[in-house]
Amino acid sequence: MLKSGSVGVVTPQSFRFDAPLALASGASVDGYELTVETYGQLNADRSNAVLVCHALNASHHVAGITADDPTNIGWWDNMVGPGKPVDTNRFFVVGVNNLGSCFGSTGPMSINPATGKPYGASFPVVTVEDWVNAQARLADVLGVERWAAVMGGSLGGMQALSWAIQYPERLAHCVAIASAPKLSAQNIAFNEVARTAIRSDPDFHGGDYYAHGIVPKRGLRVARMIGHITYLSGADMAEKFGRALRDREVGDEYRFHYDIEFEVESYLRYQGDKFAEYFDANTYLLITRALDYFDPARVTGGDLVAAMRPASAKFLLAAFTTDWRFPPERSREIVEALIATGRDVSYAEIDAPHGHDAFLLDDPRYQRLMRNYFETIAEEVRA
Amino acid sequence: MLKSGSVGVVTPQSFRFDAPLALASGASVDGYELTVETYGQLNADRSNAVLVCHALNASHHVAGITADDPTNIGWWDNMVGPGKPVDTNRFFVVGVNNLGSCFGSTGPMSINPATGKPYGASFPVVTVEDWVNAQARLADVLGVERWAAVMGGSLGGMQALSWAIQYPERLAHCVAIASAPKLSAQNIAFNEVARTAIRSDPDFHGGDYYAHGIVPKRGLRVARMIGHITYLSGADMAEKFGRALRDREVGDEYRFHYDIEFEVESYLRYQGDKFAEYFDANTYLLITRALDYFDPARVTGGDLVAAMRPASAKFLLAAFTTDWRFPPERSREIVEALIATGRDVSYAEIDAPHGHDAFLLDDPRYQRLMRNYFETIAEEVRA
Repeated sequence: MLKSGSVGVVTPQSFRFDAPLALASGASVDGYELTVETYGQLNADRSNAVLVCHALNASHHVAGITADDPTNIGWWDNMVGPGKPVDTNRFFVVGVNNLGSCFGSTGPMSINPATGKPYGASFPVVTVEDWVNAQARLADVLGVERWAAVMGGSLGGMQALSWAIQYPERLAHCVAIASAPKLSAQNIAFNEVARTAIRSDPDFHGGDYYAHGIVPKRGLRVARMIGHITYLSGADMAEKFGRALRDREVGDEYRFHYDIEFEVESYLRYQGDKFAEYFDANTYLLITRALDYFDPARVTGGDLVAAMRPASAKFLLAAFTTDWRFPPERSREIVEALIATGRDVSYAEIDAPHGHDAFLLDDPRYQRLMRNYFETIAEEVRA
Repeated sequence: MLKSGSVGVVTPQSFRFDAPLALASGASVDGYELTVETYGQLNADRSNAVLVCHALNASHHVAGITADDPTNIGWWDNMVGPGKPVDTNRFFVVGVNNLGSCFGSTGPMSINPATGKPYGASFPVVTVEDWVNAQARLADVLGVERWAAVMGGSLGGMQALSWAIQYPERLAHCVAIASAPKLSAQNIAFNEVARTAIRSDPDFHGGDYYAHGIVPKRGLRVARMIGHITYLSGADMAEKFGRALRDREVGDEYRFHYDIEFEVESYLRYQGDKFAEYFDANTYLLITRALDYFDPARVTGGDLVAAMRPASAKFLLAAFTTDWRFPPERSREIVEALIATGRDVSYAEIDAPHGHDAFLLDDPRYQRLMRNYFETIAEEVRA
């Protein structure tokens, strides 16, 4: 048995698609590129491929490091690699940056061939279903007729669910972690505050800030700070920061000012600043809107059981007790609908302190769950 | 028995204080005004006075309507009035706009006599303890040596608690609704995001926007939207808005844009716009900072029991099950500390769907609780 380790240095590939892609909105994208990383080898009968779908701010860079930056570790590196739960000695794992994102795939930052300028505000609204359609074309090119599994956390889990509905024959397993069948009003509300912060930044210029050589960093910073609060649990924040003062002892005098006083303020500002350096504001709008719009039961008059009926995959769902963004109740809605349709469902509710972010962390029970589940898949596909 | 009704048209009064007020920060305010409303009559032995302390965005205008605007109903009009739980036929009720707020009392918008210009960013940081000291001076002027009760919800409850600690002999009852002994890291985090939105609005001009004849409305709008999400419960938002589309049926086609699509977006934008029209940005910073800093157990090394020991009032605390800003656990911390000091404490946990905002609403159990408690006080003071 190989020691668990990293997939090492990975090089992203770009796939070009020339056929227009019709979108849910009625608009279409004429031609587009998707940036992709793959890990492990596709086996002879092409049965060991796993698609990893990303959430709001992540990308195709799921595992390993990049040649230019050894600190640039993939966002799910603890999950994907040799000897890891999704074992790249057995599986061929694919990470893809979604259409409309800002890490190499075609999106608002890309040059619109029709104008020679960045798409900006003219880039169409894209949905989870559109992403899945784009990913299906990628599967065609990769020669994957049927995924051993499509997996993801949060918004990534929504893509996995949508795969099971849109392309039931093309995946054996659907793995959706810390996900939901649709956003709640409160979820949409948080998204809308973040979008308002971005939109109302004077540097946003209605989405065409590229032409002004500027980035609406103030808005992005606030958007990320809000998001970050919803990714952590209250208990986790209390544990990590409490009321600790920045650079001082808890009992020290307050400084009585509006600059950073508490450690948690410093942390949030740091997260906001970092995010504003690398993330595209139009992509933030686009991806939060895709989240808002996701609601597979909409076409079945709100009936989630009917919505899930086309699915034939086996399912693994997992949720974390302290996740208040997509709490376990939301995963249970999906589980109950799947049971009602007679699907094969495993569900784990994991008592972990780290809120929504827990799906990215290496809680031992969570890791064991995933390891065991993918072990079963590996046996099924003789990987 | 009089029919329960409104106190009618009320006229605010302004009280001028010329002696400097030393603040917790070490700074002082040389002279200041407080805007006040009173309802009912102070009885002969001056034993029936009730002080109502306000939370973030409220004011001295607790009950009734103002002469200029019959729709301008006081923020706790369902609680205070003839025949209401705090019965103005029996109690002399005082509402005061706090120092640093923006409804008439001296604050960042006021002219600094030393410069002839608005204080703006130079207005000192003010704490809950400072407010209580200013309110105690008001009590002196009103001839109230001892309040029958000091009461408030949320931040108003913190002032009531601080009264019990700072001036134990000057109140018979302390009524703190939906409050907390100090903010959690998550509470501070939400405040900091709101402040960042305001501070980073280019129209903020470092707090001296008055000189530019402009108001940082974009920042205020985002700040209020964030706040508003934390005042409502998730269930309440789901009930009120769900995923309803603006101006259309739930099953209608999405419009696939970034403008208002969902009802909850429309509601939040409306709340944000309205708030930005009337609230002062520096006051928002000042009051959220007062919230952050409130921590009476800080001077006792984190020991809340020791912090509450000076108090001699009787206490009523109440909390609402769906309040996730200051959930019942936070009130229970106070109750337990008070029990440990041997104080007389009543505590009610009210199963109400409306989150933190429930303290402002007329849930029948909450109303009954308050009515009964103030009935007892009225008997004690023979009001």
